[in-house]
Amino acid sequence: MFGVTILGNNSAVPAFDRHPTSQVLTLNNRNILIDCGEGTQIQLIKYKIRRSRISHIFISHLHGDHYFGLIGLITSFALLGRQQPLTIVAPDPLQRIIELQLQVADTKLGFELNFITIKETGPLLQLPDVEVRCFRTDHRIECYGFVFKEVRNLRRLNIEKVKEYNIPLSFYDNLQRGEDYNANDGSIIANAILTTPAPKPRVYAFCADTRYDERILEHIHGADMIYHETTYHDALAQMATERFHSTTKQAGRIAQLAGVKKLLIGHFSSKYDSLKEFEIETREVFPNTDLALEGVSYLIPQ
Amino acid sequence: MFGVTILGNNSAVPAFDRHPTSQVLTLNNRNILIDCGEGTQIQLIKYKIRRSRISHIFISHLHGDHYFGLIGLITSFALLGRQQPLTIVAPDPLQRIIELQLQVADTKLGFELNFITIKETGPLLQLPDVEVRCFRTDHRIECYGFVFKEVRNLRRLNIEKVKEYNIPLSFYDNLQRGEDYNANDGSIIANAILTTPAPKPRVYAFCADTRYDERILEHIHGADMIYHETTYHDALAQMATERFHSTTKQAGRIAQLAGVKKLLIGHFSSKYDSLKEFEIETREVFPNTDLALEGVSYLIPQ
Repeated sequence: MFGVTILGNNSAVPAFDRHPTSQVLTLNNRNILIDCGEGTQIQLIKYKIRRSRISHIFISHLHGDHYFGLIGLITSFALLGRQQPLTIVAPDPLQRIIELQLQVADTKLGFELNFITIKETGPLLQLPDVEVRCFRTDHRIECYGFVFKEVRNLRRLNIEKVKEYNIPLSFYDNLQRGEDYNANDGSIIANAILTTPAPKPRVYAFCADTRYDERILEHIHGADMIYHETTYHDALAQMATERFHSTTKQAGRIAQLAGVKKLLIGHFSSKYDSLKEFEIETREVFPNTDLALEGVSYLIPQ
Repeated sequence: MFGVTILGNNSAVPAFDRHPTSQVLTLNNRNILIDCGEGTQIQLIKYKIRRSRISHIFISHLHGDHYFGLIGLITSFALLGRQQPLTIVAPDPLQRIIELQLQVADTKLGFELNFITIKETGPLLQLPDVEVRCFRTDHRIECYGFVFKEVRNLRRLNIEKVKEYNIPLSFYDNLQRGEDYNANDGSIIANAILTTPAPKPRVYAFCADTRYDERILEHIHGADMIYHETTYHDALAQMATERFHSTTKQAGRIAQLAGVKKLLIGHFSSKYDSLKEFEIETREVFPNTDLALEGVSYLIPQ
């Protein structure tokens, strides 16, 4: 399983029961939170996301609608008796803000809280199942997008051949890691006969808050799915530029130029009650677009 | 109109669709926010409270469930174009936390944001229509309760007498301020004939988070209505003491000893799904008790 569940799809001021930015990326049994606007912990409960499985939280930038829910979530983790370590990845000075608030409340964490401070475009983190890179976006304050790339080192077993050559079950892991098999009769069965290459790793890119900026293309090129903000309709392109945000058609154009498979759009301005026009306008440029709807999971197939 | 509307009645961890502590005290056209847990701005929208009429926000203490919603509310005020000044009354170092967060987001406020730092029990603020005092409570960190006392200096006109003596409309304000009337014929009509004394000021006391502590009685004595926390049922009195909280019967006992007219209870632990038992137990000690229910306004009659 590799997909993203939307917890908040609105821009700064909450409206129409839409919430500030937050998403959960799920890879197998791991949840990774991307941005954490106010009320995220309540959205996590509402949509029955396993909070204990959140190992990492990535914060794109320090506008409040992207991180004001973080301190509440951390505090609740403490009160709920969390023990697993938690890593926060964010620009400066988030660590100082969080630590100050924990300190004045005299909050004792029963778990390890680690911070990774983002400083520039580049690799951020290498986990056993995913690697994460970040790229700078064109926003009013320092802001980063994230690229999550699945780690898929294990080759697929060719079950027919494996049975034909009577490979013992205990050797399957070695086969997946690419080893040849030495049979009892001294013969060697080449790995290439017994397995097929590892599947292509899936890639999700979260493009954060940004003006239209083709410099991000190199980072998201060929992704299976990207999220790109569409704060405004196409008619407000000038306002979008002035406020360091993007429009529907700009997001569609980025998806098109980057050759991605699917586009999710969100960060809708509180000006707009209905979201229908966002979908229509963006699909005119990039047909495989979906609105990022709260509570909905968007999966990338195998 | 003098009353309080409940926005959140739960203790630290949100549960059962109950929210962390926040209340709005309404006096005529003024709204005063008391505590501001995460999600308060969303509750304000939900219950159609006029945010623009919030002139002051009182924060009892710096546990997150009492103030994590404040920075989001202030940020939204800025985005919504607020111009009226806003005063935050809170213990140290809330000002530092808020200013740091505004600074890193490069948020420009179009209104004056003032801070009053609470340092000890005593008078806090004198407004034209209300005076506010605070008192220290027995909690794990520095924590204050608040007493809101209506200012009622204006005497009531005795309309019958006012008409009988042909007092001109333009002099009514002077009468209410206690002046005698000098008639054209040189006679003096004593104010006591034309008016009756100002009505007794109404008093609401918010007792914040606290252990059972009779030292607060002197501050809340005779109030029309108090809010006292009841985190736990009576059976968990020992846990309440250990965790610097109170039980149902303890809150009832405080209301009884203080000779107040009405008791509101809240800050319910997330242990409890139903609130019924809180009401039953507290009423055994103090019958005129109501659960502080979210979205409900509790008025103090004239």
